[in-house]
Amino acid sequence: MTIRIGIMGYGNLGRGVECAIKQAPDMELAAVFTRRDPKDIKILTESVNVYSVDDVEKFSPVTGADPEHAIDVLIICGGSATDLPQQTPKYASLFNVVDSFDTHARIPEHFANVDAASKGARTTAVISAGWDPGMFSVTRLYSESILPAGATYTFWGKGVSQGHSDAVRRIDGVIDARQYTIPVEAALEAVRSGSEPELTTRQKHTREVFVVAEEGADKERIVNEIVTMKNYFDEYDTTVHFIDEEEMARDHSGIPHGGFVIRSGKTGWNEEHSHVVEYKLALDSNPEFTSSVLVAVARAAFKMSQEGMYGAKTIFDIAPAYLSPKTGEELRKTML
Amino acid sequence: MTIRIGIMGYGNLGRGVECAIKQAPDMELAAVFTRRDPKDIKILTESVNVYSVDDVEKFSPVTGADPEHAIDVLIICGGSATDLPQQTPKYASLFNVVDSFDTHARIPEHFANVDAASKGARTTAVISAGWDPGMFSVTRLYSESILPAGATYTFWGKGVSQGHSDAVRRIDGVIDARQYTIPVEAALEAVRSGSEPELTTRQKHTREVFVVAEEGADKERIVNEIVTMKNYFDEYDTTVHFIDEEEMARDHSGIPHGGFVIRSGKTGWNEEHSHVVEYKLALDSNPEFTSSVLVAVARAAFKMSQEGMYGAKTIFDIAPAYLSPKTGEELRKTML
Repeated sequence: MTIRIGIMGYGNLGRGVECAIKQAPDMELAAVFTRRDPKDIKILTESVNVYSVDDVEKFSPVTGADPEHAIDVLIICGGSATDLPQQTPKYASLFNVVDSFDTHARIPEHFANVDAASKGARTTAVISAGWDPGMFSVTRLYSESILPAGATYTFWGKGVSQGHSDAVRRIDGVIDARQYTIPVEAALEAVRSGSEPELTTRQKHTREVFVVAEEGADKERIVNEIVTMKNYFDEYDTTVHFIDEEEMARDHSGIPHGGFVIRSGKTGWNEEHSHVVEYKLALDSNPEFTSSVLVAVARAAFKMSQEGMYGAKTIFDIAPAYLSPKTGEELRKTML
Repeated sequence: MTIRIGIMGYGNLGRGVECAIKQAPDMELAAVFTRRDPKDIKILTESVNVYSVDDVEKFSPVTGADPEHAIDVLIICGGSATDLPQQTPKYASLFNVVDSFDTHARIPEHFANVDAASKGARTTAVISAGWDPGMFSVTRLYSESILPAGATYTFWGKGVSQGHSDAVRRIDGVIDARQYTIPVEAALEAVRSGSEPELTTRQKHTREVFVVAEEGADKERIVNEIVTMKNYFDEYDTTVHFIDEEEMARDHSGIPHGGFVIRSGKTGWNEEHSHVVEYKLALDSNPEFTSSVLVAVARAAFKMSQEGMYGAKTIFDIAPAYLSPKTGEELRKTML
């Protein structure tokens, strides 16, 4: 049988999910839902319809949608600030769901809300599936469980920070801006040495900003406003480059990201041996990689719901075999 | 409560397990079992006894050991060639067990034997827990599930190969030898570029051998016998260095190892975006890292047995949260 996926929200993330489903031998896209007028949305998959979010309940197996319409897993592609805290509990009472909620500090609260909704409806709801939270989290968990005496470091970048780019765009005289977060090579090397240095986020990263300024704008003032901006740049070593619109379009239109999780730990009766575990992501497209995680996790959510594992889950609760379309036998034979 | 661990076999691996238990807040070493005379074994933990392997059944919860003696998980620290194929099915009928069986080609057969024994006795038996098979395997599985369109590469080293070192020691005129497997930097770079090159194991690795020769031995003949040795060296680019016993003891007494798992994959409607996932281990002590994996997995085996998840398992079947002593709530709050 084929796992029928619904996509809630068709931005970068929703489009990435659509692309990832195309690569999945055991899945099909069933429907896309939008808050906009469905007539205004053109999706990539020709045979699939776009519906208004108001129609989503007709596809819910919980409320008894007919098998032809029922959606096995709804992947919720909204934003973490306002969409997901509302959407994921709501839709977890109608579907198995997956989201990429990434406001770390609010995860316990989001988990509790989603757990209540999904347990009530006997659905499986996986939250915070992406790369951080997501693959970085699970790497931190494995590494710390294996090497309990040690320290874990997360570095982000090189990659585009949307929030920081937006903040620069709000400065008077700025037409466009792109901000890259960049790990400090010396900090990476210190961590890899196993010396377990104390490092703040600021010591681990620098910021680089590319700005298209209005003609005649006071560049010195713009630079000053950027590097002194509270919470965004003031505590970082920031470099600003002024470029023209053509260069911006040519060299900075992608959304690359990635980073490192590194744990160093000691073993031995007197902790005499050092070990370093390093996990690195280098991503051409931040949203497409996140979408690819969402789709693998949707497969797991479906299998877990089939086995009655209801309630809110995270990547920590998913046995890795559930993420693959291959059988346990195939996995042991080819990948163990 | 504390998870009571038994160690079957007290070599490098068994001693590593003993050290790792010392770092586990929720575990204690209950007993060590040996095929040798227990009087001849001196272990590091002063309060714990060494028993003959013939006494192990007295500690089995399956056969009704009293709670004071019952062992929650037996970690089997034997070799994959002859010990584990026999020991793991045997002890899986008496205990929850964990082993590090690493003969990749024979995993399906070993799994089937252990599965039958453990299901019959209602125990949980995790096989092939280490770093390869083990952490490398689970990294291959995650990466391929997330990026199905791509290629996975495993590189080993820099590290000591015991089998190759032994093979060199059997050459006439050789007193001692140490063989290192080394990844080829150019091959690593080609893989990281995302170009998905076709590479044989030989193209990915070189071999470096340090030899202590007898006085007056024909070094040219020794080098020739090494580099032409079938299945071990003949297909590799091999470098041989002659050193004295003092240098061997000073610079080559450790058992370091490690390596890389790298997957590159494409996403996007026309697979227009590239992503590279890289997992690297740099281990001071190969057996101690393997032991640390075994102990984390033993924790998981215990929890899974408490939940009635009986039968043979691998790292693919273990939800990562089971490996940690922390609660789900703590994990979500601190590590997600």
